[in-house]
Amino acid sequence: MATMGKGRLEAFSDGVLAIIITIMVLELKVPHGGTLADLQHLAPVFAGYLVSFVYVAIYWNNHHHLLHGARAVDARIMWANMHLLFWLSLIPFTTGWIAEFYGAPWPTAAYGVNLVLAGFAYRLLELAIVAHDGKDSVIGRATRHSHKGTISLVAYSAAIGLAFLAWQVAIAVYVVVAIMWVIPDRRITKQLPDHPA
Amino acid sequence: MATMGKGRLEAFSDGVLAIIITIMVLELKVPHGGTLADLQHLAPVFAGYLVSFVYVAIYWNNHHHLLHGARAVDARIMWANMHLLFWLSLIPFTTGWIAEFYGAPWPTAAYGVNLVLAGFAYRLLELAIVAHDGKDSVIGRATRHSHKGTISLVAYSAAIGLAFLAWQVAIAVYVVVAIMWVIPDRRITKQLPDHPA
Amino acid sequence: MATMGKGRLEAFSDGVLAIIITIMVLELKVPHGGTLADLQHLAPVFAGYLVSFVYVAIYWNNHHHLLHGARAVDARIMWANMHLLFWLSLIPFTTGWIAEFYGAPWPTAAYGVNLVLAGFAYRLLELAIVAHDGKDSVIGRATRHSHKGTISLVAYSAAIGLAFLAWQVAIAVYVVVAIMWVIPDRRITKQLPDHPA
Amino acid sequence: MATMGKGRLEAFSDGVLAIIITIMVLELKVPHGGTLADLQHLAPVFAGYLVSFVYVAIYWNNHHHLLHGARAVDARIMWANMHLLFWLSLIPFTTGWIAEFYGAPWPTAAYGVNLVLAGFAYRLLELAIVAHDGKDSVIGRATRHSHKGTISLVAYSAAIGLAFLAWQVAIAVYVVVAIMWVIPDRRITKQLPDHPA
Repeated sequence: MATMGKGRLEAFSDGVLAIIITIMVLELKVPHGGTLADLQHLAPVFAGYLVSFVYVAIYWNNHHHLLHGARAVDARIMWANMHLLFWLSLIPFTTGWIAEFYGAPWPTAAYGVNLVLAGFAYRLLELAIVAHDGKDSVIGRATRHSHKGTISLVAYSAAIGLAFLAWQVAIAVYVVVAIMWVIPDRRITKQLPDHPA
Repeated sequence: MATMGKGRLEAFSDGVLAIIITIMVLELKVPHGGTLADLQHLAPVFAGYLVSFVYVAIYWNNHHHLLHGARAVDARIMWANMHLLFWLSLIPFTTGWIAEFYGAPWPTAAYGVNLVLAGFAYRLLELAIVAHDGKDSVIGRATRHSHKGTISLVAYSAAIGLAFLAWQVAIAVYVVVAIMWVIPDRRITKQLPDHPA
Repeated sequence: MATMGKGRLEAFSDGVLAIIITIMVLELKVPHGGTLADLQHLAPVFAGYLVSFVYVAIYWNNHHHLLHGARAVDARIMWANMHLLFWLSLIPFTTGWIAEFYGAPWPTAAYGVNLVLAGFAYRLLELAIVAHDGKDSVIGRATRHSHKGTISLVAYSAAIGLAFLAWQVAIAVYVVVAIMWVIPDRRITKQLPDHPA
Repeated sequence: MATMGKGRLEAFSDGVLAIIITIMVLELKVPHGGTLADLQHLAPVFAGYLVSFVYVAIYWNNHHHLLHGARAVDARIMWANMHLLFWLSLIPFTTGWIAEFYGAPWPTAAYGVNLVLAGFAYRLLELAIVAHDGKDSVIGRATRHSHKGTISLVAYSAAIGLAFLAWQVAIAVYVVVAIMWVIPDRRITKQLPDHPA
């Protein structure tokens, strides 16, 4: 399989992620009145935007490190990347649903399903890069033990079930996992030499 | 004709394609209720989004290889590229129409017309690059036999007619051709040396 | 005045122009029915999208050549560029107005006013670059005689008046000027050496 | 802490800022009629778009200089940058609110709160870069005395209070501070050598 440069894949991913993160704000519709109460009605939408903004920012950050460590891009990596972008592109939708019907079990579960699928897609992207670069490459060594990824997938799955029992707990899980990820992916940064440009 | 660098044309195309692929998700409007049934009503819109996401991803991928192989960009290539982006920019619209009125012949046919016009525009872009680079250039040799392109145009044309007879078959054609294209354009990748950046 | 690199200004302009050109398609709303007649109602919106797509593509192309020829970017050029992007960002709005109320004099005139202001802003950007690079620089020599720019501004101004007398003629002017510009700006390309990257 | 290159952070920020600045025009909805009076109803929305366009342009410009002067990007800078983008991404929302309910105290105050939070986030980004690069670095020296930043934060805070007493004065403050910032950030440009690319 011929490989190709990483530049345009990064540029395209940056574009899609920038649009995803910004498009969510369109869900924050101008209130129907000019009072504080009108603004307060938007609190759940605002909270949903905040959490999802952090999730997309986390993905951008980890994606940045992952692609930086990759040697090159082949067709399998390209499609694994598109697959990841597909699930991430649904985050504005599931965010809008959970925010507008907060407390309802299905929207709460749907948000978790979206996170599971995106997390799974990210893992597939890691594996596609390892398949190309080799197990002893930077990414091969960095992704050998993906504890944080595994914990996240387990937590999201638990939250999907909890959505039907105690939606507040499910939402707390989404928030806590996001906070856990704000700490950067040291698995990869540890392996990488500092680079000034 | 003065030539210009490829960098900004690729960057602009990446931007437009990133927006096209992401803007479609705006058609996935937040359901009016919080139940599973509310979500199920969106199944055709979701399916349409998926297929069109794959088509735009295919175009991005092939466009990437095509421009990578091109020597430089002249005015004719620039306008051929804009012409391609124009038809691709209508995909969110035709996707929205076929998804909202699935089973109706005109929307089903319109989707095929859009794919024919985009496929034709892609072929014109190939020809514009060959006209610039020469028949023995990388792209000249790579695009000599465009079997997959020809098959696609024939299949889309058949689907346009089938839209009025058996819309399910027309849609099956759109899906099958997309799957065929997910396999990367080896015509060009075969000609290109591996490149790590 | 400290100068800065051109890279990020080009990247930001590319991003804004890519969004402007694509956002217009959101005005092409999914028809309320699945018949050919439902599609035909969109003919004026589609025609407006086509003409404005060509105008934004022309600006992108000329902007590309202009910035390529510029030596560097200072604060004056940065703001002249923002000023141009501002008027171009209104094109989706004036396009939507003229398309939805075609035949009405004010929307027809507003489209021309938008084109005049964008054309004027482009000329100011040229002058800002000449002020930085000098009259004998590439851009200084290339923009000395801006016949096409002057003709366009005169034509748009005439169309603004014609909007109240014979709107069809005004629209014909917009279309004819666009076609005139599809031919690339040889003033600058003539001055530039071919460059392969 | 491993550092990373600045390229993708700049590219991602450019993308987000380009979308923010352009998405605001979506608030400029096509008027319900084709007369001049229909257009005049949009005057407050247009004025709000203009002021916010200038603010986002200012942030882009200052961000450009700040990142250009920075040596590299670490996780703290990355998150400080995301934090800034978050508040800037709310500008289309607060602009829409103040424009649709101009004269109402809460929307007028909310716009100021947004500006305070964005200004504060920008200052945090400066501090994160200084923490990485050192107090005697380009950015360390350039940001030592942030008079303009301090004046702006004081002015916005005053405007938040004034929103409930004399909204016209509050809006005048927003406009005057924007004009003050159109003059580029010489603190940094003074420290930087001219660079042609």
